[in-house]
Amino acid sequence: MTTEPDTAPRTPLLDGVSSPADLKRLSDADLGRLAGELRAETIHAVSQTGGHLGAGLGVVELTVALHAVFDAPRDKIIWDVSHQSYPHKILTGRRERMKTIRQKDGLSGFTKRSESAYDPFGAAHSSTSISAALGYAVARDLGGACETGHGDCVAIIGDGAMSAGMAFEAMNNAGALGKRMFVILNDNEMSIAPPVGALSSYLSRLYAEQPFQELKAAAKGAVSLLPGPFQEGARRAKEMLKGLAVGGTLFEELGFSYLGPIDGHDMDQLLPILRTVRQRATGPMLIHVLTKKGKGYAPAEGADDGGHATAKFDVATGKQKKAPSNAPSYTSVFGRALVEHASRDDRIVAVTAAMPGGTGLDLMAERYPSRCFDVGIAEQHAVTFSAGMAAGGLRPFCALYSTFLQRGYDQVVHDVAIQRLPVRFAIDRAGLVGADGATHAGSFDTAFLANLPGFVVMAAADEAELVHMVATAAAHDEGPIAFRYPRGEGEGVTMPERGEPLEIGKGRMIEEGSRVALLSFGTRLGEVRRAAEALRARGITPSIADARFAKPLDRDMILKLAQDHEALITIEEGAIGGFGSHVAQLLADEGVFDHGLKFRAMVLPDIFIDQASPADMYAVAGLGAEQIEAKVLEVLGVAQIAGKRA
Amino acid sequence: MTTEPDTAPRTPLLDGVSSPADLKRLSDADLGRLAGELRAETIHAVSQTGGHLGAGLGVVELTVALHAVFDAPRDKIIWDVSHQSYPHKILTGRRERMKTIRQKDGLSGFTKRSESAYDPFGAAHSSTSISAALGYAVARDLGGACETGHGDCVAIIGDGAMSAGMAFEAMNNAGALGKRMFVILNDNEMSIAPPVGALSSYLSRLYAEQPFQELKAAAKGAVSLLPGPFQEGARRAKEMLKGLAVGGTLFEELGFSYLGPIDGHDMDQLLPILRTVRQRATGPMLIHVLTKKGKGYAPAEGADDGGHATAKFDVATGKQKKAPSNAPSYTSVFGRALVEHASRDDRIVAVTAAMPGGTGLDLMAERYPSRCFDVGIAEQHAVTFSAGMAAGGLRPFCALYSTFLQRGYDQVVHDVAIQRLPVRFAIDRAGLVGADGATHAGSFDTAFLANLPGFVVMAAADEAELVHMVATAAAHDEGPIAFRYPRGEGEGVTMPERGEPLEIGKGRMIEEGSRVALLSFGTRLGEVRRAAEALRARGITPSIADARFAKPLDRDMILKLAQDHEALITIEEGAIGGFGSHVAQLLADEGVFDHGLKFRAMVLPDIFIDQASPADMYAVAGLGAEQIEAKVLEVLGVAQIAGKRA
Repeated sequence: MTTEPDTAPRTPLLDGVSSPADLKRLSDADLGRLAGELRAETIHAVSQTGGHLGAGLGVVELTVALHAVFDAPRDKIIWDVSHQSYPHKILTGRRERMKTIRQKDGLSGFTKRSESAYDPFGAAHSSTSISAALGYAVARDLGGACETGHGDCVAIIGDGAMSAGMAFEAMNNAGALGKRMFVILNDNEMSIAPPVGALSSYLSRLYAEQPFQELKAAAKGAVSLLPGPFQEGARRAKEMLKGLAVGGTLFEELGFSYLGPIDGHDMDQLLPILRTVRQRATGPMLIHVLTKKGKGYAPAEGADDGGHATAKFDVATGKQKKAPSNAPSYTSVFGRALVEHASRDDRIVAVTAAMPGGTGLDLMAERYPSRCFDVGIAEQHAVTFSAGMAAGGLRPFCALYSTFLQRGYDQVVHDVAIQRLPVRFAIDRAGLVGADGATHAGSFDTAFLANLPGFVVMAAADEAELVHMVATAAAHDEGPIAFRYPRGEGEGVTMPERGEPLEIGKGRMIEEGSRVALLSFGTRLGEVRRAAEALRARGITPSIADARFAKPLDRDMILKLAQDHEALITIEEGAIGGFGSHVAQLLADEGVFDHGLKFRAMVLPDIFIDQASPADMYAVAGLGAEQIEAKVLEVLGVAQIAGKRA
Repeated sequence: MTTEPDTAPRTPLLDGVSSPADLKRLSDADLGRLAGELRAETIHAVSQTGGHLGAGLGVVELTVALHAVFDAPRDKIIWDVSHQSYPHKILTGRRERMKTIRQKDGLSGFTKRSESAYDPFGAAHSSTSISAALGYAVARDLGGACETGHGDCVAIIGDGAMSAGMAFEAMNNAGALGKRMFVILNDNEMSIAPPVGALSSYLSRLYAEQPFQELKAAAKGAVSLLPGPFQEGARRAKEMLKGLAVGGTLFEELGFSYLGPIDGHDMDQLLPILRTVRQRATGPMLIHVLTKKGKGYAPAEGADDGGHATAKFDVATGKQKKAPSNAPSYTSVFGRALVEHASRDDRIVAVTAAMPGGTGLDLMAERYPSRCFDVGIAEQHAVTFSAGMAAGGLRPFCALYSTFLQRGYDQVVHDVAIQRLPVRFAIDRAGLVGADGATHAGSFDTAFLANLPGFVVMAAADEAELVHMVATAAAHDEGPIAFRYPRGEGEGVTMPERGEPLEIGKGRMIEEGSRVALLSFGTRLGEVRRAAEALRARGITPSIADARFAKPLDRDMILKLAQDHEALITIEEGAIGGFGSHVAQLLADEGVFDHGLKFRAMVLPDIFIDQASPADMYAVAGLGAEQIEAKVLEVLGVAQIAGKRA
């Protein structure tokens, strides 16, 4: 495999752009050419680093047009999700740092307030942009103090993100308040997976009804309005805007003026229309822009997911430069184990919120399409829909990333836990996730699930354990059950032929030792083993246990570990309040602390950890083998070692 | 005040109804008369107990019609929120137990699966019913095993609840799946407060366009379709349904057939229309029913909130029999303190999610209407909208009940905490709430907020402390801050003239004692004081401290308490993972447990506690003065006392 960088594209216009102000000096024709250069630069940049590609390519022209017409950072341009913000980053002074994107100490893969004044509201989870833009619009009108000043508020949101309830809540509120703001619906018929839901069909009908040609003509007409006499211009602009709006009743019923659909790759439509609305709009306006994910790069355009995210790749061929994998990913292990159970139990159904590939449910969807439900970006509904199916006698697996499960937390409490309904939560991306950074970390699920009465909460120590936990969940009809597992590859352990249900609330001893017991919950077990190996070289032989369950705890095992050792240390990939806190509560309740126990709970630290490799992130978190070893030595008072955490 | 019960109404038809099956034997005319009796019975029952009144009165005819036409419990009738389910409870075998409603060991004020087979899906938070009904519909079609069998799925949801994003997510999914199910939109232009948002205006336009008379005629026409020859009947039914649907484009665009609006108090419309749709519908159908909250009881109809909830009352006059209050409610103390700050700081704004009265923001809305935002039932949007206003330089107070904040949890993490935006969370109804029971308990907020990096988390020990915490939050621009306080009256303490900002992360010593330190977080402080008084009579003088902050902890104070005492006990109105867990983590990290400390964390127990008086609920929870006293005695090994918790 060659590691030679691809040749950088020629970008004479882009080379002259160090901030959006530079766009104001370009002719419309040059802006069109700039878009071409920006596309080439984006492809080149992502080919060097990997990252999100397709979404950015889809909004190259829109990005140029927005920055040419609006006046950021005074005007607030808010990208929803913001994996499409790479071209925006390139235009807003971050071009040189693009080679650091998604890496340690580098640019974030998403917009981020602390990174740039041009990022007025950070994102990564979907459907927040309209709420944020409305907040800015209100702050503007009430005289809030903003360092960059207050101007227009523009939210750019995809059709997939628009299907989330939160976007509807924001539209409902914004439509009623009637404040001037712009929502640009970036309709590429794609979230990450192909779109689902009734809204998606509705949008398709909208643009099926209106050929682009008419809009193009109307848009050209718009140019003539500017800068004509104001009164006359205003009247004509109003008529013209009305003429452009050929549908969009749904949005109009919510109090927005609708305009579109517009060809989002045609600068001759984008520029005059954005200029017109910027000059004339009074209340909330939705501008429906059609784009193509991956536009202008054949390997992305041709991919099922529009080239959503990629490793480093060769620009000429599109071939990705992935390191060979040593073990199957946890995600795929889950997906295969679920299908295996589904083949023997036709009550098993599965739910994903727009992430069939990311959760491994694509396998289920392929084998049992009628039993696999992609509900769109709709975690609240996903959870309660699962609860309804459980009440109706099915065995639903609700597969979500830990961080997105936060979207359905009340539904977990109110609809699942209180009713003791046997929904199975498959929690992917638990713990630190690497390049996606803090917004995607799965840090809080153990804490926010394990204190819910009646819940069973498990974490898999390796991919074989995950297979057993799928079996455990499938067999558990008594109430809700969750199992968490991380992003990435497994440990490479021998896989069982099939999963066997674990005994609820029973952990397992891995190694019997003395003086100190290391009690692991989740995949830190590998680091714990490595720490133990280093400790043995120093004459310390720790006991090692895998808790398997944060709830119910294995009381007998834990109390015995406390009794038989001078020190007990818990290790987990989660924030305070989770496994370690439950162990502490048990030990306190049982009076174990009364007479002394060197107890420590190693948890994620009280910081949001920026993107890096998972190993680097866990080093920052203090949860690597070396740090576990250091903790043991410190607690036992054995020695100070070099490299100990301050 | 007289305690004489009002005379029970005469209810000859209702007396013959012990289950919905009995309705099948009544003529339509008798069903209409039954509705009248059911209304009188509902008024009488609530007058004896207090509870939710207006919503139930609004759906009396609908309840009778649904149970006459559908076949519960085989058909799943799912009431959204379900404070309107009292008439349903009366018809489904629970009439005699209505006098126990919302009381200890009595009926729940909401639907509850464990209470009745006629409650297929419990509720209390809004907007879950469509998701649940869709889940049942899928389970039916996939052959799920349900004890009561599988039939039709009917969700009854209010116009306020329909504005929540979750309902939209469910409609979007249901419209796409196309399964037969019924959503009855119970449009009373009222959630608890008057409705807000663009959807509400939309619904008003729908029924403004269509006089009832035409529908009535069409409904009468529907009768003639049944039981005519099937082919012909089907064709005519289809036409008739089409004729009834006079608007509702928004719902049709989401894949639902729309039918309405229908007069929800006219049995001559309800019965034939429900019969027709039950016989003929194939896919998802939305039936738009207009009702009046509080219908048929003048004092409720005349009230601003439609007689939403009430204490016991005199039926003739509507006069409520409330116990005189001894101290202002925490809610009103918050509301007044906020207005006081707002009067001096025009950057202060406030956000409520459809609870202006419940949160005390009605005062703010009255004084500063342009700075107080009721976003409707939309907690996700409420949080991120607040974050946007904070980014724009305002000082937003987002006032939510603890249990409803769960709806916006991801937004708290992703939009507020990660961005360190200074949103002020005023968390009402923290801890156990009494008659509303487990679904409304505010048990988890300390745990799910205190592990978020950069958050400040406070709990008020009394109403004077609350005033200071409002001042603390107002002055805190460095990042997110939350303060929690319970439902109900304050302690009756002397109020400060104005709030003064507290030093962040500093607790306060209340009493200096010896041997045992009681470290309270929140309003359990009163019980702690009472426990200490009883202990002093036994010769034990505990130290008492009010932590004020769960985050950041007052390290110095806590470590000194640990050093100076044989035992340290934390007390809080929250589940494990919160304040006590953070204290345990600190003590473990500092090696305090290494040499022994009698540490206990008194938290809410690992059960969902059913409704009762708050005092009774705290007794069940083990968090009353007696139980604190017992815990001290047990930990100190002083004595076994009578009444000690098993």
